[in-house]
Amino acid sequence: MPVFTEHSAASRELRVLPSFAPPLPRLAPQLAENTTEKYEVVIVGAGPAGLMLDLLLARYGLSDESLLCVDSKPTTLKSGQADGLQPRTLETLKSLGLADEILTEGCQMWQVAFWNPSNDKDKIIERTSIVQDVAVPARFPHEVTIHQGRIERILETDLLRYSKRGVQRNTKLIEAKIDEEGDAEFPVLAEIEAEGHRRTVRTKYLVGADGAHSVVRRSMGLKLEGESLDHIWGVVDLVVDTDFPDIRRRCAIHSPAGSVMVIPRERIATGEYLTRLYVQVPGDVKPDSDQQTEDGPNTPPTADARARRGQVTEQTIFENAAAVFKPYYIRPKKDGAVDWWAAYQIGQRVTDSFSVKDSKGVNRVFIAGDACHTHSPKAGQGMNVSMMDSYNLAWKLVYAIHELTPSGSSGQPDPLLDTYHIERHTIAQQLIEFDRDFSSMFSGKIGASEDGVGGLTHDQFLEVFSRGNGFTSGCGIEYPDNITAVRDLRGEKNPIKGTDYLSGVLRPGRRLLNVRLVRHADGYRRDLQDDFASTGRFRILCLASTDLLDPDGTSTQTLTQLGAMIPRFPLSVLEQVAVHPRLEKDFMWTDIPRELKQYSEMSFYSGYEIDDVYGIYGVNPAEGALAVVRPDGYIGVIAALGDVKRVESYLESLIRTI
Amino acid sequence: MPVFTEHSAASRELRVLPSFAPPLPRLAPQLAENTTEKYEVVIVGAGPAGLMLDLLLARYGLSDESLLCVDSKPTTLKSGQADGLQPRTLETLKSLGLADEILTEGCQMWQVAFWNPSNDKDKIIERTSIVQDVAVPARFPHEVTIHQGRIERILETDLLRYSKRGVQRNTKLIEAKIDEEGDAEFPVLAEIEAEGHRRTVRTKYLVGADGAHSVVRRSMGLKLEGESLDHIWGVVDLVVDTDFPDIRRRCAIHSPAGSVMVIPRERIATGEYLTRLYVQVPGDVKPDSDQQTEDGPNTPPTADARARRGQVTEQTIFENAAAVFKPYYIRPKKDGAVDWWAAYQIGQRVTDSFSVKDSKGVNRVFIAGDACHTHSPKAGQGMNVSMMDSYNLAWKLVYAIHELTPSGSSGQPDPLLDTYHIERHTIAQQLIEFDRDFSSMFSGKIGASEDGVGGLTHDQFLEVFSRGNGFTSGCGIEYPDNITAVRDLRGEKNPIKGTDYLSGVLRPGRRLLNVRLVRHADGYRRDLQDDFASTGRFRILCLASTDLLDPDGTSTQTLTQLGAMIPRFPLSVLEQVAVHPRLEKDFMWTDIPRELKQYSEMSFYSGYEIDDVYGIYGVNPAEGALAVVRPDGYIGVIAALGDVKRVESYLESLIRTI
Repeated sequence: MPVFTEHSAASRELRVLPSFAPPLPRLAPQLAENTTEKYEVVIVGAGPAGLMLDLLLARYGLSDESLLCVDSKPTTLKSGQADGLQPRTLETLKSLGLADEILTEGCQMWQVAFWNPSNDKDKIIERTSIVQDVAVPARFPHEVTIHQGRIERILETDLLRYSKRGVQRNTKLIEAKIDEEGDAEFPVLAEIEAEGHRRTVRTKYLVGADGAHSVVRRSMGLKLEGESLDHIWGVVDLVVDTDFPDIRRRCAIHSPAGSVMVIPRERIATGEYLTRLYVQVPGDVKPDSDQQTEDGPNTPPTADARARRGQVTEQTIFENAAAVFKPYYIRPKKDGAVDWWAAYQIGQRVTDSFSVKDSKGVNRVFIAGDACHTHSPKAGQGMNVSMMDSYNLAWKLVYAIHELTPSGSSGQPDPLLDTYHIERHTIAQQLIEFDRDFSSMFSGKIGASEDGVGGLTHDQFLEVFSRGNGFTSGCGIEYPDNITAVRDLRGEKNPIKGTDYLSGVLRPGRRLLNVRLVRHADGYRRDLQDDFASTGRFRILCLASTDLLDPDGTSTQTLTQLGAMIPRFPLSVLEQVAVHPRLEKDFMWTDIPRELKQYSEMSFYSGYEIDDVYGIYGVNPAEGALAVVRPDGYIGVIAALGDVKRVESYLESLIRTI
Repeated sequence: MPVFTEHSAASRELRVLPSFAPPLPRLAPQLAENTTEKYEVVIVGAGPAGLMLDLLLARYGLSDESLLCVDSKPTTLKSGQADGLQPRTLETLKSLGLADEILTEGCQMWQVAFWNPSNDKDKIIERTSIVQDVAVPARFPHEVTIHQGRIERILETDLLRYSKRGVQRNTKLIEAKIDEEGDAEFPVLAEIEAEGHRRTVRTKYLVGADGAHSVVRRSMGLKLEGESLDHIWGVVDLVVDTDFPDIRRRCAIHSPAGSVMVIPRERIATGEYLTRLYVQVPGDVKPDSDQQTEDGPNTPPTADARARRGQVTEQTIFENAAAVFKPYYIRPKKDGAVDWWAAYQIGQRVTDSFSVKDSKGVNRVFIAGDACHTHSPKAGQGMNVSMMDSYNLAWKLVYAIHELTPSGSSGQPDPLLDTYHIERHTIAQQLIEFDRDFSSMFSGKIGASEDGVGGLTHDQFLEVFSRGNGFTSGCGIEYPDNITAVRDLRGEKNPIKGTDYLSGVLRPGRRLLNVRLVRHADGYRRDLQDDFASTGRFRILCLASTDLLDPDGTSTQTLTQLGAMIPRFPLSVLEQVAVHPRLEKDFMWTDIPRELKQYSEMSFYSGYEIDDVYGIYGVNPAEGALAVVRPDGYIGVIAALGDVKRVESYLESLIRTI
């Protein structure tokens, strides 16, 4: 199109950049110039938990003046070992705009095959069944496996769009303590060392995301409690040469010679595909007291455990694997095909408190990720639960720091910050309990009732696997009742029918399941979760009833009242998403409340043309319902359609009105 | 997972990077050191056509020593105006791993609304219908609108992963000529100027992607032939304030006061949404001779056209728009809401040759994009057809340069390079014909048979719109029969049933429609187009028949013969993708030909569990079929399942055997 006249505004040049997430408003006074290294948050550790927290806080609005993340290592991951992303983690990454490379270039793991001893002695092992790896509804109904360092690189690349400094590396925490007398506003003292040089920084909040040997945890006198169990495992990442037919599926192989778990991995630059193998080292060892007491004085490891550990080498791992795969062969594809190998002993431990308060009862120090829970890797949970710890903590911290909560600048303890421990400690407990069951069953023998481990059947194993799927996928997580997830109906009738929460029935404390629907304004066939981006905002989800076109109906009254309520809260902190059921006739904007277009022009949907949204969410179209969804995508409260008061009092308990 | 032993290979650190496309093998001798500025390809212009070509050539393997792209502007786009990406372009960008940001952050345009004069005089205009914007099957069944500069930024960012130099900016082509006597191997001379400094570079091939006023085209004596039609239009990008109900849909509005096209655009940093309006300037002007002869001596514009053009201002555009939208109001949301505005006069022109040969008949100079075709913007074609020109040319150029074609190093004209003009000139002709029809109808009045334009009905307009959809979406493009798209069956029976090519029935010269299927190796529910990434490779698509499990059947024979044929071609240039129909029983790798696992372990699918692949492609499951898909995703040839010979002779005509 050759034009003959053209004019453009300077702002137009901004249109070429990738979009930035809008920061949360700040009601707190701006930080004074940061001359003495005082921060609002200091994060120790830049693994998946620390990076995720750093990125979220930066996106929500903490500047480099306010936020510091240090890590003792010189560069991003060299020694990490996680590789699995669960469906709920993928939803979270998608809500941050960070899922695309992972979904495209990671290995999508859709199925799991179970191999067990065969009655036919020539076959030795046989495939008992293949099931879907993710058995619960999820936006991405599969796991993704990919090198942990790649996840960290993706998080860090995005971080550098929001933070000029990024992670301060080669910088180690020596010790931390709470010192209110020195500076009541910045009461946490952290002594850090960079390139042989020590310095002291002060911060309002300190977060330990510094792994299983956390210095923050140790400084605060918190302990990882738990035990080491009695099996040693080897793990290896490599390009394999094999005739085993299910090498590209996740496999649980129980053979007379022991157990192997196969985790297919991503394609690499050579065009070949990686495989991870978890290989059991035969024989039992006694529960191991040295790891149990890592925070106290070291007890020497038992001679038995020490001797067994010394025996684990790359060669023994392959020998053990080869025995389990028989009659199939398996070997590294060629010299140099082994990427990484390691050995570990299963242990499940959790810290009994995830935060430490100052003398006024204000939570000042938090721990997240491996610093508060360690467990076996085989259910693919570690990196996920760790990042989700941060995802839970981040918005709460910024709401407190920005004085968006009712406590505001009162200096009183903010109950919102208590909910981090309440919610995530519950999940950590469930995690180690699940892992204990799953690991022992996996280490046990199947179809071998003659030995001491005791006749575990394939069906029992499959049952634990499937039952655990809601938990392991992250999609079935339910936070306990607390001020951010209110289940108590106070005598009101529950507007939600059904209890199949895993399949989407709305439930405070659970994440809002994605549904597909059609947008009123433009016919865009869209994923609802895309209106719940992780920008730190609360959202009111209004499921209007069939009376929407009645100007005197409950839907209209509700939308009008919501329209009056929203401006009572700080600008942009509250968004509204609305859905309507099938109505008796077509309509235009002029047929529905003005406030609906005002607050939901681009977030108003028909909820029946693709998915049956009302059916999935357990809402009667004749009655409708209201829900508030927290900034992290979990449902905070549910109310009857007309009950705007319940929504308002929930919000008032968490957000300051203006 | 705390480990006690750990070892990792150095290569593992590479795993954190984004993936790179593997270059094509080079059979030609390596370039001598480039001391005198001799290149294999010089591209002039870094708009969408030039950048796409530069990126593809760099990905296919041309180094900075071999490839130069210059652009006269100092930075990426300031003045571009395209904003629409069609479904086929989205498929292409997806095949390059470049679609994610565009799909997520662009405006997905799903519907188009038609507004026409109402019989109810109070209403003035009314919505006649809403239809899907893309009516043909496509992987992405919608358009995306987004600022052209953003597309260019995405292409350039990716380019810089493959090319250290990137685009050489502030560098202008002064003149180009073919000079075989000076250097027969690098016969094209280009005189370029950078920062006031002139220099001469030599190249094997020169590509003019330098826009409507192309210096390359002019230097080569090629002309844009065509005419300017008689309507002046204004175009404006802005944030609007309006009560018009369809402002977020593409709209064709015909009112008694004139015509407007509404193009909804992406969300911007303020959280608001852009809208583009095309607004007809009332009244007719005479076809305009000045633009017609732009390559010759300038004729002064007619006084009429000149006067009319001078009248187009931001204010007149809004006044005209306001009149057409009545009774609805429309205005810029607030001061400064206008991003860009321009005025243009519709013209359709095409160059009669897209390439120029040297004295030996070797194609040496090519033109692409606006340099060879200009037309109106309203069907959203410009940027798309331009990038697809480059997509068509890129692999052909590299096959010639890398001596992967049978001509090899013979110095003989390579017939592969003739096919660029054959294919893309045909499309350009179709484009301007479609645009001429569509534009005149759009500029005409609807339901206004009393005036001179002549009673165009809404149904006629809708019919042109819908019929054009195969073309405008890019999904219905069919290249004419040529050595790269062979339709002649030479008396053999066509293994394909049906003629609904738009819906996926296989047809040489058309793109392979995406289907969803389940991978044998891992149960991954996958898009077939993801196995046809734009890495420059040819692929054999083997649709096995129901006899796959019969060791003496046609499927087995075919796969065995293909397995013997593939190694005759240069390593990695040929890939194989295989699909099977529903079979009478489950099977494992050991039940099917060894060659199938060898060449298609990760590209072998069941073709019935999600989509009915055989039905869509027009293949009888009892008979199967073979197809070769070109590096750009278009079908090159089709053969009966047993007819490996036909596949082989097609490939031998394009690829050198070893």
